[in-house]
Amino acid sequence: MGRYDELMSLSLRRGFLLPSAEIYGGLAGFYDYGPYGARLRRNWEDLWLAFFLQLGDNYHLVDTPTIQPHVALEASGHVDLFADVLVPCTQCKETHKADELIQAATGTSGEGMDVEQVRQAIREEGIVCPNCGGRLGEPTAFHLMFPVAIGPKGDEQAFLRPETAQGAYLGFKRAFEILRKRLPLGLAIVGRAYRNEISPRQGAYRLREFHQAELQIFFDPEGFDALLSLEELENTTLRLMWATHRDEVAMPTLGTLLEQGDLPPFYLYHMAKVQAFYLDTLQVPPEAFRFYELSEEERAFYNRIHFDVQVALESWGGFQEVGGVHYRTDYDLSRHQDRSGVKMTVFHDGRRFVPHVLELSFGVDRNVWAMLDLGYETGEKAVLHLPPRLAPVTLGVFPLVKKDGLPDMAEGLYREARTWIEASYDASGSIGRRYARMDEIGTPYCITVDYDSLEQDDVTLRDRDTTKQARVAVKNLRGTLQGLLEGTTDFDAL
Amino acid sequence: MGRYDELMSLSLRRGFLLPSAEIYGGLAGFYDYGPYGARLRRNWEDLWLAFFLQLGDNYHLVDTPTIQPHVALEASGHVDLFADVLVPCTQCKETHKADELIQAATGTSGEGMDVEQVRQAIREEGIVCPNCGGRLGEPTAFHLMFPVAIGPKGDEQAFLRPETAQGAYLGFKRAFEILRKRLPLGLAIVGRAYRNEISPRQGAYRLREFHQAELQIFFDPEGFDALLSLEELENTTLRLMWATHRDEVAMPTLGTLLEQGDLPPFYLYHMAKVQAFYLDTLQVPPEAFRFYELSEEERAFYNRIHFDVQVALESWGGFQEVGGVHYRTDYDLSRHQDRSGVKMTVFHDGRRFVPHVLELSFGVDRNVWAMLDLGYETGEKAVLHLPPRLAPVTLGVFPLVKKDGLPDMAEGLYREARTWIEASYDASGSIGRRYARMDEIGTPYCITVDYDSLEQDDVTLRDRDTTKQARVAVKNLRGTLQGLLEGTTDFDAL
Repeated sequence: MGRYDELMSLSLRRGFLLPSAEIYGGLAGFYDYGPYGARLRRNWEDLWLAFFLQLGDNYHLVDTPTIQPHVALEASGHVDLFADVLVPCTQCKETHKADELIQAATGTSGEGMDVEQVRQAIREEGIVCPNCGGRLGEPTAFHLMFPVAIGPKGDEQAFLRPETAQGAYLGFKRAFEILRKRLPLGLAIVGRAYRNEISPRQGAYRLREFHQAELQIFFDPEGFDALLSLEELENTTLRLMWATHRDEVAMPTLGTLLEQGDLPPFYLYHMAKVQAFYLDTLQVPPEAFRFYELSEEERAFYNRIHFDVQVALESWGGFQEVGGVHYRTDYDLSRHQDRSGVKMTVFHDGRRFVPHVLELSFGVDRNVWAMLDLGYETGEKAVLHLPPRLAPVTLGVFPLVKKDGLPDMAEGLYREARTWIEASYDASGSIGRRYARMDEIGTPYCITVDYDSLEQDDVTLRDRDTTKQARVAVKNLRGTLQGLLEGTTDFDAL
Repeated sequence: MGRYDELMSLSLRRGFLLPSAEIYGGLAGFYDYGPYGARLRRNWEDLWLAFFLQLGDNYHLVDTPTIQPHVALEASGHVDLFADVLVPCTQCKETHKADELIQAATGTSGEGMDVEQVRQAIREEGIVCPNCGGRLGEPTAFHLMFPVAIGPKGDEQAFLRPETAQGAYLGFKRAFEILRKRLPLGLAIVGRAYRNEISPRQGAYRLREFHQAELQIFFDPEGFDALLSLEELENTTLRLMWATHRDEVAMPTLGTLLEQGDLPPFYLYHMAKVQAFYLDTLQVPPEAFRFYELSEEERAFYNRIHFDVQVALESWGGFQEVGGVHYRTDYDLSRHQDRSGVKMTVFHDGRRFVPHVLELSFGVDRNVWAMLDLGYETGEKAVLHLPPRLAPVTLGVFPLVKKDGLPDMAEGLYREARTWIEASYDASGSIGRRYARMDEIGTPYCITVDYDSLEQDDVTLRDRDTTKQARVAVKNLRGTLQGLLEGTTDFDAL
């Protein structure tokens, strides 16, 4: 069984990602989150929010509708530019995505080509249908946004948002005023976005309805660098792949990169923070993480600097994008200013200017999937090695046997635990089988109530990864678990 | 200034609810959640999840797409029935909602009438245009769901979901198997839903894109009552308005209602729990809360029993719906079984049957708005009396003055606090002004670092509602705050 199938099997069996509307044959590009997947995703979002909102004192969660008016997405450039080029085969009638067609035929990326460029490439390279060898027909542009018509006559044109970012730009001016006109200002949105993908892909990678976690940092381009504590990061090694050196991952220190001066200090600072989120918080192995620079042709024209965040997964056949660090300059705010006539300039530090934007953007579904792939150990026993705070269930609670008052004590502990963490009570089957159930959904800790517990008022606490056990007094249980979750308590010292 | 304007002014000034796409003139029926509103809503959702998932050991958060296939919503009855009837005026061309037209002209509800019934009512009652007195034209049905076309040819028909519930029904069978075939099984979804309302209303009441928190409880109709601890609730007084007695709120005990036997025990049990969530967790004054029974004509045909949850708000002019307790029987699962051909029966307690559903449904936006209206005290000073765990910021941290090391100590405490709660640091303006800023967004506690703090390693802790102050040692700060938030510590005992 391949890695993808292994993960999908886990997913279906234990309720992480599930096919959506399955009883009606499913809907391609859409997933349900089952009982453990939904909690895993919410925990990932909570960790993301805690980490990224703490990058600044003026960084806040906001939320904006998924339906956005036509005019706003026209101003942002999405109405004109957010399209794929499709090419039909005149013979077998299959429809191909032009960029994939060109990539396969020539080995170079066809991304970002317009209809005319695609037509020319097909002619010049003599590209034919990869299915049947037939002649390709006329390329056409296909819009990736879902249109929505509002109102009784449907005459108000809108779209489902293709990214969460625009909501933050549209609301920037008011947020700036509410938050007492300070920069940098961070607005984070965690929510759904929609793209009418032509060929949705497996493994939560290319969905039609997906979740993003995006932080838009609005800043003064002349003053941002000076506000950041760069010194303490100078020895941090960044793992990155330059657009000009796609053969290997470079590992310069941040200090070296600062000296070289190719990337601005504020950009490097945030790369280091993003990397720390992956390596420390999400516990991704360093060799499975890298930044991947996009060349000028590859990146969107409004991004002055663009590195993808990539994670290597067996189920994806290697490194794939899970996020990005985008220096969007003042492009978005200026476009909205031009179109709406509302001034986006701020008066700050004695100057008037349109703030620049650094976007830290993450695909939540891909990240959740990555956690499953990186964490799932199969073999003699199946264990999902999730970072403890990500696990959908934090604590399994078992009575050793179903009699002599053991279930009563265990249930009491279970109810107490549920007031502050996710807990699961299980009294059926052998203890080994109950551990196995919890291991497979990534539960980091389990406690067992045995006969000694009744007398000593303590329990056996077991660690998922090491299977080590320790005896913990009931009165210390919450403190111990809190310490373990926050990393201030060492299991071996119990 | 009326109450609605007062709240909208607070909202705009401090970033709770904001007009969406405001720079482009706004979009009727859509709101942004600003920096404090988004956090308030997330906190409300967290409290809701904590309370309602703890009603059962087998109750789980799940999440399903907002785009649902046509066939599923046809099976559920939404495609056929989820429509308003519209009536145009032949003279002034204004379009009227038939139910409002009939209500205004006759004093009785026109809700649920189909096109033919509306036509008949207009003729029989001689209803004319309320605007211009002109003759009314042909009534037509207008669909409340937003259609979405999926795929490159747009030939896969779907809709934005009109309620979160259907996602739980579609996924029930798989969830039941994943969760080891136990009943009752609870599936909670917290997320967006969409209705193309003809006349969206102010105050987060009738939105086109809104948020629901819904728990679907799947149960064995023959065995559910016996599983519930009804005895301990017998003396609970339920506040309710019967469909047959719309002149006053009755306040029978649950014990009396059990004896009368008009409502099944499991239904009464959940009414008591919902009421406890409002009165205890959300701290709604009892006189502002009631259940409102819908008559057979008023309720949806698939609901065998239906009480709305209502809260009285000045900004709404009295009691309005914020949720509902719906006994949907086996209607939904049976419909999906019939249409999909997939068996929805379960084998449980020796019998095979289609589980029944009790739905606890809540409008999140309305509830958030209700918290603002119930909590906002204006007058000499403006204070938002939110339950502490709902407040967008839990702790304000101030240095008494901006010198002599006070800011350093305060910033240190602020950073520590942010690792586990929402905190806000403020060093500008008088202490009174800083308290006022925090009072207005509902921050329950503030600490001030003064000169004594440097020597004694303690701070002044202030309570929002009483403005009482207490001196707390830094080493006890987290424990004290935790106790206050969980209700185990009394401020007066500090």
